[in-house]
Amino acid sequence: MTARVVFIGAGPGAADLITVRGARRLALAEAVLFDALTDPALRDLAPAARWLDVGKRGFAHATGQAAINALLVQTAQACQATVVRLKGGDPSVFGRLEEELAALDAAGIAHEVVPGVTAALAAAADAQRPLTRRAHGRSVSLTTAMTHLGALHASRSADTEVFYMAGRQLAELSQRLQQAGWPADTPALVLSRAGWPDALASSLTVATLADADARHAGQPAVVTVGAGATALASVAADVTPLKTFADIRPSPGSAGPPT
Amino acid sequence: MTARVVFIGAGPGAADLITVRGARRLALAEAVLFDALTDPALRDLAPAARWLDVGKRGFAHATGQAAINALLVQTAQACQATVVRLKGGDPSVFGRLEEELAALDAAGIAHEVVPGVTAALAAAADAQRPLTRRAHGRSVSLTTAMTHLGALHASRSADTEVFYMAGRQLAELSQRLQQAGWPADTPALVLSRAGWPDALASSLTVATLADADARHAGQPAVVTVGAGATALASVAADVTPLKTFADIRPSPGSAGPPT
Repeated sequence: MTARVVFIGAGPGAADLITVRGARRLALAEAVLFDALTDPALRDLAPAARWLDVGKRGFAHATGQAAINALLVQTAQACQATVVRLKGGDPSVFGRLEEELAALDAAGIAHEVVPGVTAALAAAADAQRPLTRRAHGRSVSLTTAMTHLGALHASRSADTEVFYMAGRQLAELSQRLQQAGWPADTPALVLSRAGWPDALASSLTVATLADADARHAGQPAVVTVGAGATALASVAADVTPLKTFADIRPSPGSAGPPT
Repeated sequence: MTARVVFIGAGPGAADLITVRGARRLALAEAVLFDALTDPALRDLAPAARWLDVGKRGFAHATGQAAINALLVQTAQACQATVVRLKGGDPSVFGRLEEELAALDAAGIAHEVVPGVTAALAAAADAQRPLTRRAHGRSVSLTTAMTHLGALHASRSADTEVFYMAGRQLAELSQRLQQAGWPADTPALVLSRAGWPDALASSLTVATLADADARHAGQPAVVTVGAGATALASVAADVTPLKTFADIRPSPGSAGPPT
């Protein structure tokens, strides 16, 4: 007997940003293949499952992804009903989902995908800066600053652009954005630890992006540029820590919805 | 005393695509302002709250949005601790969040934003067609086909483009996409009822988009064009109903995580 594989988007990090459907599927898992960045508290949703860390930061080597594909297939073949592949954010956005689906298809293994909150949305929520704006913010682009060949790339193709995995190249990103036609004073927002109580936002411009370097060092960050980085008229626009909410973290075993 | 307002993204429709955090905040609500498109089953997460329908389809008239803003402020001022503004999808993406945040700021009312699964992500999950692809799908654009002035607009600015609220203009969208430089045989996916057991996917090309018109009539649909609409090599690419999962709908009162 071979298990079905359920890809689940865990959201940007904090365990309670997984969807209710994701949490329910996770509870059925006999084995969970997960990435290093996800919240350890997610384990409480499937305490009896075997948890396999396949985490890798940045872009995986081809061999790394191939090894994950093989492990996923082998695990499904060794299980009975449900194997979960837990991914940070949303599986369909920079999740390398294509390769893993193809590997399962080649092995004749059934699969389902449960979507999740991608980092751009969590960052916008934390900063309370909507990615779309009436009249002047009608398109949002989600992109990686880094190509798979390691080159830094930037464009000006949408009213709001969100760059993933850009935290370590802010100075170069600033230059590339200006070369791509973004005016130097275009609003830019760097947000790290999106969705967590200690999320950190820096409100800058395209020209001053590098000023956020030290503040966000070592943290996964998204960079939002353009209409969606603009502060609302009545909200303080300077570099400000976000409000935190003491009750944000899930407390396993607590009573309350969803049931 | 004035309540805090929590904006919650309910996801694309089915109640179990709300996040665990969203469900927990919803359970605290004294009043909920919601839009017409959200799943009635969400009410089970806050059965004691006052539920106020402020739904409107497509683009609201300026007066409609102003009335919602005023009602939101008045409701917060009439409540003690928590008022929820429940929005379909994610509040930061085509959610008119900016206007409502500004109204609350003007009234001095505190607010929080809980992100949600936006329709593009749920559609990609249902169709199992990732929005990003290694090497040739590095950017995703989320956009509305309709401008706020009612004009239809299409562009070619990203490897994958997802058009929201485009279901009623497929023939015109097909023309505009080709005018914007998309080759006629570019893969295009129309997906309605994203996230629901009866989600419906039509796999077409930019030139044949209008063929999906009758099949998706009257349903909210997203249209995905480019790399992210391409079928995986081993997956059937024709117009095919999606698999459904009998256990997708949440069953209020059932046992199981999250607790």
